[in-house]
Amino acid sequence: MTAVMSLLDRGRAQVVPALQAAVDRLDPASRLQASYHLGWCEADGTPIPGGGGGGKAIRPALALLSAEAVGADVHTGLPGAVAVELVHNFSLIHDDLLDGDVERRHRRTVWSLWGSAAAILSGDAMLALAHEVLLESPAPGAARAGWLLASTTRELTRGQIQDIAFEKRQDVTLDECIDMAGGKTGSLLAASSAIGAVLAGAPEATIAALTTFGTEFGLAFQLIDDVLGIWGDPAVTGKSVYSDLHARKKSLPVTYALADTRYGERIARFLATEDELDLDSIAAIADTLATAGARDWAVAEAGRRMKLAGEALDTVDLCPQPREDMMALARFVVERDS
Amino acid sequence: MTAVMSLLDRGRAQVVPALQAAVDRLDPASRLQASYHLGWCEADGTPIPGGGGGGKAIRPALALLSAEAVGADVHTGLPGAVAVELVHNFSLIHDDLLDGDVERRHRRTVWSLWGSAAAILSGDAMLALAHEVLLESPAPGAARAGWLLASTTRELTRGQIQDIAFEKRQDVTLDECIDMAGGKTGSLLAASSAIGAVLAGAPEATIAALTTFGTEFGLAFQLIDDVLGIWGDPAVTGKSVYSDLHARKKSLPVTYALADTRYGERIARFLATEDELDLDSIAAIADTLATAGARDWAVAEAGRRMKLAGEALDTVDLCPQPREDMMALARFVVERDS
Repeated sequence: MTAVMSLLDRGRAQVVPALQAAVDRLDPASRLQASYHLGWCEADGTPIPGGGGGGKAIRPALALLSAEAVGADVHTGLPGAVAVELVHNFSLIHDDLLDGDVERRHRRTVWSLWGSAAAILSGDAMLALAHEVLLESPAPGAARAGWLLASTTRELTRGQIQDIAFEKRQDVTLDECIDMAGGKTGSLLAASSAIGAVLAGAPEATIAALTTFGTEFGLAFQLIDDVLGIWGDPAVTGKSVYSDLHARKKSLPVTYALADTRYGERIARFLATEDELDLDSIAAIADTLATAGARDWAVAEAGRRMKLAGEALDTVDLCPQPREDMMALARFVVERDS
Repeated sequence: MTAVMSLLDRGRAQVVPALQAAVDRLDPASRLQASYHLGWCEADGTPIPGGGGGGKAIRPALALLSAEAVGADVHTGLPGAVAVELVHNFSLIHDDLLDGDVERRHRRTVWSLWGSAAAILSGDAMLALAHEVLLESPAPGAARAGWLLASTTRELTRGQIQDIAFEKRQDVTLDECIDMAGGKTGSLLAASSAIGAVLAGAPEATIAALTTFGTEFGLAFQLIDDVLGIWGDPAVTGKSVYSDLHARKKSLPVTYALADTRYGERIARFLATEDELDLDSIAAIADTLATAGARDWAVAEAGRRMKLAGEALDTVDLCPQPREDMMALARFVVERDS
């Protein structure tokens, strides 16, 4: 754990100055909103010393490691690290607006402070800036990395569109839910795990292996995140108890149980209701899901995906230390507070 | 005029199939919304024969010509043409939502039919797709063109942010207004006028001249558009009479007159009121603007900008026919229905 923390600290130390230099290029309004969202300042622009509120910066750390894993200098991966962090935060700012969320990481969201126009336009500007930063890189694979960033953004968008559509549907299948999670969560973790190698001009097989690594551990992460959203301890997760069940979220364990011949119909009836249920009724649904095998399946499936992630890295020739660090980071992300 | 029409027809004939192939790659929801917005189908997906509702496609025609102007094959400019049209329409879809406009070209807007989430996400997907298409080009300047597209998108966003901020301010200067119009209108016309040459790997001086051409004629276009928004004949413009005055729009002629020592305060008082004025009062304001010299200034300034646009093209060595065609297209855009 300490090793992973120092990996993340190292990543932040390298990425944050470059990310700040990039954000400084934005128009004044977008710059303030992006800096606030990234945890660097208050809504009025007052700097926050240490600027710790901006998340763990997993994606930039992976981007740097993926350059080192193919023997490139860490600086080769730096524009990729900045770009994936900008795209991640562009999508968070747009998603908070779409989902109507007024808080993220215990702070007000951009749209709730500055309005929807500000959230849309500062997000758009951050997405464009990500491409600028990446395409200014002199690295051999800069254009290919720009393409990866664009196709990944489209995957992110596709996942978000599916997620919203699923809210209104009662017949979401497990395959559809896995496809949605692959877009919404897996695609940017996959791109982050490969973009440094892409910039360095690594061979296709290496890029493919790193992408598979990110896709698989991204799905493992989503599976465990979904388990925690149902059965997680609020004291540990920071979410309210049974939060995903209260929201009737069609998460991976829930769609797994929907297909169960004994319990599927009960779960479907629960999802179709909109009334606020008391804690005992919600707890009973959580028990039904567990009895249908949803929890065991999700945990086992996450383990299987993590194994596939590791095996993908073993198929190609990578520098041992960064490869181990990537795997440690993936394990940390998946197993965090579970 | 007929020559320009056949130029635009030729552009559409080359670009629309490539644009359709690109849009086909979108997720089903974004594909329907983009196709509807582009005038290819009804909201329920029913194809519109001829699909004429999607505008004149000026920007893609310029992109194709800018490749030919530097001696490249028209196909070199094609991914640039598709990309600028996608970016133009991404920004229209987002802007319609931001401005709360329910109609565009006599058809319902995307957000008004499918909601704001659909407009945000299909716009995001179209922006990402523009980068994918461009970076798939084997042309020598593909990465540079991707960078141009990204920095232009950020300029567009900056212009829109300024435009929204100006609505709440009473002290907008002419310089600020020109800066805003340069972002919102000039930047994408400038990029369209250069992107084919960028793809072809043309020298910097040529790219700079084509960019200046687009910037200057873009401002000329905005000046005349603003003149028509105040003094235009509704039968010709398709806008309601004095439409920009009713909206209290701080357009270029209005901000020009604001600085007038004799009439500036009267204009400022008018802009500060929000009441619906009767036609005579609005007509009196239009007269005051004209008396302050706003109309003459805007028309003369548009002429000066057009001259600068032409002179920019004369500073470099371009193929004569495409160069003339670009100038004819610029004149058509600026002088349309004025």
